[in-house]
Amino acid sequence: MRIIIVEPKNPGNLGAIARLMKNFGLKDLTVVNINRIPSEDLFRSMKGSEILSKCRMVSSLQDAIKGLDYVAGTSGVKSDSPKEVLRNYLEPKEFVRLTSEIKGKIGIVLGREDIGLVNEELGMCDFFVHIPADDEYPILNVSSAAAILFYEMFGGGKKKKIETISRRENDRLIEKFRQSLIENNYPKHRVQKTTLLFRRVISRAILSPYEYRILMGAIGCSHKDIIDI
Amino acid sequence: MRIIIVEPKNPGNLGAIARLMKNFGLKDLTVVNINRIPSEDLFRSMKGSEILSKCRMVSSLQDAIKGLDYVAGTSGVKSDSPKEVLRNYLEPKEFVRLTSEIKGKIGIVLGREDIGLVNEELGMCDFFVHIPADDEYPILNVSSAAAILFYEMFGGGKKKKIETISRRENDRLIEKFRQSLIENNYPKHRVQKTTLLFRRVISRAILSPYEYRILMGAIGCSHKDIIDI
Repeated sequence: MRIIIVEPKNPGNLGAIARLMKNFGLKDLTVVNINRIPSEDLFRSMKGSEILSKCRMVSSLQDAIKGLDYVAGTSGVKSDSPKEVLRNYLEPKEFVRLTSEIKGKIGIVLGREDIGLVNEELGMCDFFVHIPADDEYPILNVSSAAAILFYEMFGGGKKKKIETISRRENDRLIEKFRQSLIENNYPKHRVQKTTLLFRRVISRAILSPYEYRILMGAIGCSHKDIIDI
Repeated sequence: MRIIIVEPKNPGNLGAIARLMKNFGLKDLTVVNINRIPSEDLFRSMKGSEILSKCRMVSSLQDAIKGLDYVAGTSGVKSDSPKEVLRNYLEPKEFVRLTSEIKGKIGIVLGREDIGLVNEELGMCDFFVHIPADDEYPILNVSSAAAILFYEMFGGGKKKKIETISRRENDRLIEKFRQSLIENNYPKHRVQKTTLLFRRVISRAILSPYEYRILMGAIGCSHKDIIDI
């Protein structure tokens, strides 16, 4: 994956994007039409400074996309009309899904802070990616757009796996809760309903094995059940 | 939804976050422990400048969270150990799913650029949200983190609805393609396989009605079929 930035003007954005590349495991940076890297950007890039200092500088988008199999342009200006072929857009998630199936090398083009990518540049792109935002002001800062795109490409869509307790453990905890009600002389006619309420709450929370063990010790806590936290 | 920023130090971040709030339809901003808004931030906030100039300034997180029903802290420093209750984290998507079911007022707390939120502050939070990133350098700039969180809260997860053609139209286009092969003396023994290949390609692309009409005119194009683009 190659990240291409076209004519960054406001100091800071280039550095912020280099930092984001490091955050999300990207390495290959090409910058179009700058002469040198501003010190403000080197400062902002933090641990992404190596990516920034090793970036390739070229004089045109045409040069920047050489060697790529697919190129994706980005812009805050989209069109919802199907006739506007140039600005018919993919949302980040669709783009990630599509490109996950591509074997070749892909480039993402981020435009200027003020006018973004011009139509001629968008015309060189195979995909056009737009980030959905509020209609009143959908134009994101270029490094904010980069944050969202890189996050999605990194796999923002996939949930971390949570280790959870089994149905049997769930039942055991609920039974312990019921027993503790009885032992504590909770009104008999309310035991069943309160236990059901407890079951609903506990099930919704989806307990980890650790949380289960702690609660097993805490509910109706006879000392022998308490474990070290 | 209230956005709370604790002690922003590097000029620019506060402005970038105010702009992002405008981008994603958020309005309520509280800043902890600043005396005045730096001019650099007002410049960067662009159309979010009203949000910034109307922000509430308070002297502690305790004051900032008054009136909220739930508070979510954010940090790049997480723990994967279930025993680290304080830094056991939710990913942005899980957080959005959970809070979408909450009726009360929610606050999101963004920490300092250098040390983030201290443990005492995280302890005031009901949720702890962490953005998954590369293990080598998972610490995001605060405005990058805000970009990703606000995007997810805005509904980054929902796909735009695409108007697509029906199965009947799909078949009609494929049949037209097959006819055009025959009319153009394409080798007879390859017609069937090539048509199947075309079906696979076209089906994968999921055509819009507009694209369908254009292609119906373009394939085997007899003039009467061509429509205005």
